[in-house]
Amino acid sequence: MNICVIGAGYWGPNLIRNFLKNKQVDTVYCFDNDLKKQKEIQSKFSNVVIIQSLDDVLKNDKIDAVAIATPVSSHYDLAKQSLLAKKHVLLEKPMTADYKQAIELVDLAKSLDLILLVDHVFIYTSAVQKMKSLVDQGELGQITYFDSTRINLGLFQHDVNVIWDLAPHDISIMLHLMGEEPIAVFATGVDHLDNGLEDIAYLTLYFENKTIAHFHLSWISPVKVRKMIVGGTKKMIVYDDMESDEKIKIYDKGFDIRDEDSKNESLVQYRIGDIYVPTLLNSEALSLEIDHFVDCCLNHLEPITSGKQGAQVVRILEAAQASIKQNKKVYL
Amino acid sequence: MNICVIGAGYWGPNLIRNFLKNKQVDTVYCFDNDLKKQKEIQSKFSNVVIIQSLDDVLKNDKIDAVAIATPVSSHYDLAKQSLLAKKHVLLEKPMTADYKQAIELVDLAKSLDLILLVDHVFIYTSAVQKMKSLVDQGELGQITYFDSTRINLGLFQHDVNVIWDLAPHDISIMLHLMGEEPIAVFATGVDHLDNGLEDIAYLTLYFENKTIAHFHLSWISPVKVRKMIVGGTKKMIVYDDMESDEKIKIYDKGFDIRDEDSKNESLVQYRIGDIYVPTLLNSEALSLEIDHFVDCCLNHLEPITSGKQGAQVVRILEAAQASIKQNKKVYL
Amino acid sequence: MNICVIGAGYWGPNLIRNFLKNKQVDTVYCFDNDLKKQKEIQSKFSNVVIIQSLDDVLKNDKIDAVAIATPVSSHYDLAKQSLLAKKHVLLEKPMTADYKQAIELVDLAKSLDLILLVDHVFIYTSAVQKMKSLVDQGELGQITYFDSTRINLGLFQHDVNVIWDLAPHDISIMLHLMGEEPIAVFATGVDHLDNGLEDIAYLTLYFENKTIAHFHLSWISPVKVRKMIVGGTKKMIVYDDMESDEKIKIYDKGFDIRDEDSKNESLVQYRIGDIYVPTLLNSEALSLEIDHFVDCCLNHLEPITSGKQGAQVVRILEAAQASIKQNKKVYL
Amino acid sequence: MNICVIGAGYWGPNLIRNFLKNKQVDTVYCFDNDLKKQKEIQSKFSNVVIIQSLDDVLKNDKIDAVAIATPVSSHYDLAKQSLLAKKHVLLEKPMTADYKQAIELVDLAKSLDLILLVDHVFIYTSAVQKMKSLVDQGELGQITYFDSTRINLGLFQHDVNVIWDLAPHDISIMLHLMGEEPIAVFATGVDHLDNGLEDIAYLTLYFENKTIAHFHLSWISPVKVRKMIVGGTKKMIVYDDMESDEKIKIYDKGFDIRDEDSKNESLVQYRIGDIYVPTLLNSEALSLEIDHFVDCCLNHLEPITSGKQGAQVVRILEAAQASIKQNKKVYL
Repeated sequence: MNICVIGAGYWGPNLIRNFLKNKQVDTVYCFDNDLKKQKEIQSKFSNVVIIQSLDDVLKNDKIDAVAIATPVSSHYDLAKQSLLAKKHVLLEKPMTADYKQAIELVDLAKSLDLILLVDHVFIYTSAVQKMKSLVDQGELGQITYFDSTRINLGLFQHDVNVIWDLAPHDISIMLHLMGEEPIAVFATGVDHLDNGLEDIAYLTLYFENKTIAHFHLSWISPVKVRKMIVGGTKKMIVYDDMESDEKIKIYDKGFDIRDEDSKNESLVQYRIGDIYVPTLLNSEALSLEIDHFVDCCLNHLEPITSGKQGAQVVRILEAAQASIKQNKKVYL
Repeated sequence: MNICVIGAGYWGPNLIRNFLKNKQVDTVYCFDNDLKKQKEIQSKFSNVVIIQSLDDVLKNDKIDAVAIATPVSSHYDLAKQSLLAKKHVLLEKPMTADYKQAIELVDLAKSLDLILLVDHVFIYTSAVQKMKSLVDQGELGQITYFDSTRINLGLFQHDVNVIWDLAPHDISIMLHLMGEEPIAVFATGVDHLDNGLEDIAYLTLYFENKTIAHFHLSWISPVKVRKMIVGGTKKMIVYDDMESDEKIKIYDKGFDIRDEDSKNESLVQYRIGDIYVPTLLNSEALSLEIDHFVDCCLNHLEPITSGKQGAQVVRILEAAQASIKQNKKVYL
Repeated sequence: MNICVIGAGYWGPNLIRNFLKNKQVDTVYCFDNDLKKQKEIQSKFSNVVIIQSLDDVLKNDKIDAVAIATPVSSHYDLAKQSLLAKKHVLLEKPMTADYKQAIELVDLAKSLDLILLVDHVFIYTSAVQKMKSLVDQGELGQITYFDSTRINLGLFQHDVNVIWDLAPHDISIMLHLMGEEPIAVFATGVDHLDNGLEDIAYLTLYFENKTIAHFHLSWISPVKVRKMIVGGTKKMIVYDDMESDEKIKIYDKGFDIRDEDSKNESLVQYRIGDIYVPTLLNSEALSLEIDHFVDCCLNHLEPITSGKQGAQVVRILEAAQASIKQNKKVYL
Repeated sequence: MNICVIGAGYWGPNLIRNFLKNKQVDTVYCFDNDLKKQKEIQSKFSNVVIIQSLDDVLKNDKIDAVAIATPVSSHYDLAKQSLLAKKHVLLEKPMTADYKQAIELVDLAKSLDLILLVDHVFIYTSAVQKMKSLVDQGELGQITYFDSTRINLGLFQHDVNVIWDLAPHDISIMLHLMGEEPIAVFATGVDHLDNGLEDIAYLTLYFENKTIAHFHLSWISPVKVRKMIVGGTKKMIVYDDMESDEKIKIYDKGFDIRDEDSKNESLVQYRIGDIYVPTLLNSEALSLEIDHFVDCCLNHLEPITSGKQGAQVVRILEAAQASIKQNKKVYL
């Protein structure tokens, strides 16, 4: 199988490096409009074949799949053309700038029997996989809430706000664990630069049952925090991505509602038990993702982070944007 | 000067202990309906004079001031009667269950030339005083945001939700630092017990300029967190009340907006400088507050945490409640 | 049963408070030469009976036991006289200033069939009890080492060095867990005040098997640390007494020695497994100790922290002192 | 200037990468006996010239300097031959396995007017440079002690003990800050594998004044710690190399000795002031070291981490080894 990476900016080289490591990939091609970037790739990866135009990529029958790592605004066009050229697609996140386009790509891939994987790379980390297996085994009981914080100082984007920039990570993790879409979205934020691009934002998602998910996103925090609490009726998890050795802590804590009809006393009983910190494999998530993509292409499997999941993320981002503008809760 | 503490529950003994320490207070009286609590106070503090009825408190001309530490629902009545009986009032927080009543008490105290202090005790901590002086000296530049987290597992209240229970602390600190009231409030939350009392809630306050304040409050967190970030254009503060020695960290971090009319490049320049952790005095906040109250009574001074400030907190709590019910932003 | 607390300084009031809570203790007496301290105790604890002289304590037949909380230099005399007066003794740590005296007290108590308990209060904490049960159950495999750090800025003593001041805690914990005495001691330190009292010291204990125990003690550290690592061949424990919620962490980590006769490769295989943080009861150690002492007195039981254990601690302290002076390892 | 890296194992590629970045280096050569490693270097760095024998390195007049990154046992021979062949030498740490050899190399380099730099790379980190400048400016007052901990689970070496493996880092930092050699060494440790190679060790260094330096080194710790406390009479530093953003904390803490001739009271007064966390540049230490080496070669400068410093480290390691064997303090 042969693959072409489209876009050799910040993320492209990581894709290339991992495709080169995969033993079922024969040749890795790369296309970028920018001559300077072409040269950089060539000097860094001597065995990558540089392609000079998008047309040459699309018409090249040896290329079975493309990995698109360009700015969001170009995702839809590039992915559509690639699919129409009968190529499997690995698409950078957020998948598209708009939900309709995302769905169109999902449908197109399906109708052409092609693989469409969205690069929600956190899903392939040992930490998220561990959390997923705990949730699926019912260890947490019913999920009561998600509370996520992803804040830092720096890297103001000039084309998207902080929600589109940072929230795709956390929303994709939350959807993966929850296995269910929210019914409403409220978002708020401030653009301290007066440019219409929020640099700090808060996002709340509401589910059919009483589960609530909340996201704090910021480019203007003095401290770097990447933390998620997953509350359950039986157990709770704190996932701290800044920790090197103790990323996930499982708290045997919860509360039980007592049936007695006592009047003045609290009806709630707390449980405070042990904490458990599982060892996590030190594997590179992107490497696992790329192996999975190649496996899906070769064996026609549904990807874990399929276009459908990617579209759900876009749908929430779009609703968040609408909520900020309309200053109210938006129902999906 | 003589004082009577009304209500000998959880907080009352702390008030008594600190009034006993104040050298300008001659006699400390105490009134509580509950005989068992009367006995407890007597055995703990042999020199406190127990009073058997509210009437005896109000009619006792030797009593110059009362400190009311009863459930919120009784605050308004007790404070009103005490003021009408010409007694200065120290009132537990939240001041009242409703803004109109709070304002009525403020006006009443003013018309009778009596002191009304609300027990927002955090304002008297060394940590908050240090932050206040930094803000007032312009060290932070313009304040861009507040982000506050006060979460823990436990102590579900059976008469108020988590906002009324925990947010008064953080709102009073924020108002004290900001010196300005918000113009709108959005709040959301979930009552996992289906009893109408939210156990997890998020509260956002909007100010005339672009400052935003956000509060995460929870009774169902596996970890205990009491943290506030105060963002400024020049510097930022992280206030972690769970730290014993480094409660306040001042980050010489910020961002500057560049004037150049570059098009594609970011207009923002970050500053990442040193961190400074000031030593804080290890004084008991309540002791300072009580000394301040006695001082205000004796010298007719306006308290730092006056009825007016207390009413502002209630106004926001009330709006938060309305926002949760109406599911939308509420303007003040 | 009636008890007299001798010495009303820093620790005495804690003993009194806990004896008052014990339901099998009828009357708590207190003796201190200092009139000011007598008054303080009386005003703090109205139901404690003040005694004016040591003689009156010793001759009082109603007093079944004494708790001695005076400076170390007076421990031997007071304990001896009390035992000779047929009173059970709870003795502050370190038990005596010299090993011979300690042994004399142990023998005296034994011959008179009296209880002698040394106040190594850490042994009664939930944390140490949990560690003890893990060690006894063989969870750690063979113990390979102890590494203890107890450092802070402050409280230079003017009669003992930092080892006599701080090490009794850690040595008593180590002996309790190890269940075996060391065979040699090396200690070193510096008296930056040139007064012969070391303010920073390092103490190493050697055991018959290859276990080693090391203690870092300091009055001149900028940070407060109270941490102990217990290494085992199967598991390891980190005990951090400054943590409020996670005092004990059990690491499923260790190393196995491989039998293969490979030449160049390492013969060691590491195991890196999960971490487990047990919930600990929030009980007051001193309260448990005092209940245990009363129980031992009433039912003639051997205390957990008996005179014998106390003497073992003194023996090590004495050897440490000798090692510092002689500048070499001292064998016991 | 042209350079040859001898030894392409773990560290060699880092040297190569950094020499390639230096603009005053024309050609980077590499020699390793192992054909497999030769190939790895060639595929990773296409512009490095592989040399097939040591003789070809020594006889090649184009090569001005060598960087030796082989096992310790070969350092002396390789460095001596290289110096005799008129090449400047960058030598991996520890410099040699024995002090006499180290001194011989220092003298040889001096007599031939060649640069000899020992790769104590920590000296070139921003953290150590910041500490050095604080010490040199007298910010700490007189240094009272060093306390260093470098522990982790893993990587038992099969040719050297934990002191030779880990202590060179900490000893070189300590000597750099202290600017003075110790007068005596005590070391102790245990080889749990019974192979004569200690896996846990404690090392104490004594200085002419009362400064003491202590090092805890371990391959069998459940937690990874790399921490150093530098105590001064005026200020103290905690250097935590595991921290990403706050590696150095400067504590305005200390103690003053009072002159009064009070008898019973402590003569010591504590100062507890603010904490200050300087921003550190995020530069790569090895890159700075290599630039410095090239600069020294071209301009005949004395390196910061000269052979002399390297020899001082070896002298202490050797004395530590002797102390362990003789079970006593060893004077230098």
